[in-house]
Amino acid sequence: MDINETIRTQLAHRTIREFKDQKIPREIFELLMEVARRTATSTGMQACSIIHVTDPEIKSRIAEVCKQEYGARVPELLIFIVDQYRNDQIAKEKGCFVETARDMDRFFAAFTDACIMAQNVVIAAESMGLGTVYLGSILNDSEKICELLKLPELTFPVIGLGLGYPNQNPQLKPRMEMRLRVFENTYTVFENYLDEIKEYDEEMRTYYDLREPGRPVDSFSNQVVVRLKQYNPKRQEILNVIRKQGFDLMIK
Amino acid sequence: MDINETIRTQLAHRTIREFKDQKIPREIFELLMEVARRTATSTGMQACSIIHVTDPEIKSRIAEVCKQEYGARVPELLIFIVDQYRNDQIAKEKGCFVETARDMDRFFAAFTDACIMAQNVVIAAESMGLGTVYLGSILNDSEKICELLKLPELTFPVIGLGLGYPNQNPQLKPRMEMRLRVFENTYTVFENYLDEIKEYDEEMRTYYDLREPGRPVDSFSNQVVVRLKQYNPKRQEILNVIRKQGFDLMIK
Repeated sequence: MDINETIRTQLAHRTIREFKDQKIPREIFELLMEVARRTATSTGMQACSIIHVTDPEIKSRIAEVCKQEYGARVPELLIFIVDQYRNDQIAKEKGCFVETARDMDRFFAAFTDACIMAQNVVIAAESMGLGTVYLGSILNDSEKICELLKLPELTFPVIGLGLGYPNQNPQLKPRMEMRLRVFENTYTVFENYLDEIKEYDEEMRTYYDLREPGRPVDSFSNQVVVRLKQYNPKRQEILNVIRKQGFDLMIK
Repeated sequence: MDINETIRTQLAHRTIREFKDQKIPREIFELLMEVARRTATSTGMQACSIIHVTDPEIKSRIAEVCKQEYGARVPELLIFIVDQYRNDQIAKEKGCFVETARDMDRFFAAFTDACIMAQNVVIAAESMGLGTVYLGSILNDSEKICELLKLPELTFPVIGLGLGYPNQNPQLKPRMEMRLRVFENTYTVFENYLDEIKEYDEEMRTYYDLREPGRPVDSFSNQVVVRLKQYNPKRQEILNVIRKQGFDLMIK
């Protein structure tokens, strides 16, 4: 089957953590923002925004939150945010003071918008030879990110994205078979997951062995255990910060 | 500036609601799933899954939840879901019974994974001439969707996606200028949003007038007011269903 350029780019996706010391030309950056603009958006409301972090001081403070030093070195850093502030202001200027701008439905619609916009930018960037790294780690301390970026009420950081020209060419990371992730009509529960992922576990061990020979290699299932044991109250208690930013959790 | 095919596709994005009565060939569907598989995923955990809804009965019940009759007519319907169930099972099979699989940090990581995977599939589909429609409306009744798809604990529906060959060629929908949505370093609050979006409001009026002549046309700011006034307790109280699915909200 003939695979087009777009899909070829998508199938070749790797996270890039080392970038060349080369700025992204302004016209390319603007094209990325135009792609962002054209992204699908829930009920047309366009309730997400982007903070383009260029100040090295703010960048390095974000990298501290992320606990990923390369965060400070990414040539371009974007933070995608939930933004119900703008539409709430528009409504108020029209004399409409409704509380529904604060509900979690609006929050999730905007959160979804922000994620799909980020991925749209990722693909556009990769199609032009740029490398990307998602920084989910901004949520290590979402309150600090709100403070650094001076996010007003009804906004919230969703995900960070580093962009630049790649200075590494990492291998594709093995992924679980899709028969374990795509189900027809109803969710499929497997009897024994370790059996099902046996080959994948092995593939991951080989991948790590090749990537960093000599280092203890790890299977996927071991990584799952390690990850699930990780404990960070600030991440876990994210809803408290969301409420602080003005959203009404509406818990019964 | 030279614009590549990928970006050309992205800039031409429109929601498609009418599809030809033509199935998506199996090899194309499988390629879309391969693109889904290669999508970036938070800490490599692959904590989202897809329910491919093919049963006309389930499809039409989902369309009822969506209150969008075309939902039942989309040739292919995918529901992207948060899936921490699989990794929790893997951990348990390894003798690790941690409660952190249930926290909202894992929920949001998986939610983000699901959204960016959906958008990756959208672009791959559009690059092959398919049309797409996001169905955020599955969250009109997330509890019902969990029931219809038999979603186990630690899973949750994120977004629906309809796919097929387009049977319409709608105009591009005007979007707000990005200067109102992209800010440098810190969030920019504007003094008067209605002033800032004056031209955009006008552009939207013209767009609707051309789309459906004779129908009362609407500006963006009017739509914001209408949307914000919409009230659906089942959508607003989404966190209660997330908790019912086994997640620990960790509200202080």
